[in-house]
Amino acid sequence: MELLKNKILTDGIVREGNILKVDNFLNHQLDIEFLNELGKEFYRIFGDKNITKILTIEASGIAIASVTAQYFKVPVLFAKKAKSMNLDGNLYTSSVKSYTYGKEYTITVAKKFLNENERLLIIDDFLANGAALTGLIDVANQAGASVEGLGIVIEKGFQGGGDKLREEGYNLHSLAIVDSMDDCNIVFRE
Amino acid sequence: MELLKNKILTDGIVREGNILKVDNFLNHQLDIEFLNELGKEFYRIFGDKNITKILTIEASGIAIASVTAQYFKVPVLFAKKAKSMNLDGNLYTSSVKSYTYGKEYTITVAKKFLNENERLLIIDDFLANGAALTGLIDVANQAGASVEGLGIVIEKGFQGGGDKLREEGYNLHSLAIVDSMDDCNIVFRE
Repeated sequence: MELLKNKILTDGIVREGNILKVDNFLNHQLDIEFLNELGKEFYRIFGDKNITKILTIEASGIAIASVTAQYFKVPVLFAKKAKSMNLDGNLYTSSVKSYTYGKEYTITVAKKFLNENERLLIIDDFLANGAALTGLIDVANQAGASVEGLGIVIEKGFQGGGDKLREEGYNLHSLAIVDSMDDCNIVFRE
Repeated sequence: MELLKNKILTDGIVREGNILKVDNFLNHQLDIEFLNELGKEFYRIFGDKNITKILTIEASGIAIASVTAQYFKVPVLFAKKAKSMNLDGNLYTSSVKSYTYGKEYTITVAKKFLNENERLLIIDDFLANGAALTGLIDVANQAGASVEGLGIVIEKGFQGGGDKLREEGYNLHSLAIVDSMDDCNIVFRE
């Protein structure tokens, strides 16, 4: 999506450790008007899939999922990152290994909000190794829900998580895929 | 706001420990169409304040803040709950004592996104003791930004945080104020 690529080139900052900072519009400050353009694009891509619910993960997936949901006219469900192991039996849980923070955490979704009748679009802001996305897919599978699409704003193509999910047959679309980046250049996949 | 009170009466579940669960529309599953009605109401209340930015806190403030921002046509900035003490000098920080989880945490906002020219509307889903809200106000004050309004979806009036902020002169509006609740009844302030 050219609009997004241009925004990343204008506003993105590359930091050591493969970090692409886009915190002025996507995951700290939120440019809601711009996110609406991304939401429209997700609807253009996945609008024919009869989506019944959008699944995302706190915190930075919530804004783009909420804005996108307006085009699909469906609710959003966001997985929580568990603060304690004191979890009751009413939750689907999955373990996610965070490469960014170097530790594992548990994501949870209330069972009452996810069942085998749901046709899910899973949305997130970033895809790198795919750990969070794999956790969300795991939760969807536990519920017997159908994963109709995976919509990502920015994929770090060089970290491989996206291509692995494509090989597994998932209907994954990233609005921008960064194939390489350094201090001077950000190169997108065509 | 009658629409919200009715929704709470229909969908809210009271749990031990003064917990009001509204997780089917406000803070786990998100009814975006309904949140839009709340956003419109915030605009009706605060629309004349020349708001330049909406400030909220992760995670459950993000959805209502993002939807509301569409009516104000301004960006959202969400404070993060710090995962580590490894914070750099480019952040405003404030310490928040969570009564729900019984511990203190630090909230952070990048200095580059908040300055003395901002006219802020602070939005959050819940107000009980006011700890999170006080942390957000502290961050705004550090930046020299003007706090033009505090917009809350559900205030637990019986926990006193809201009235304290009103006494301090803040322009606080909660769309529903619960004055008491038990297994059988939820009583709203008129």
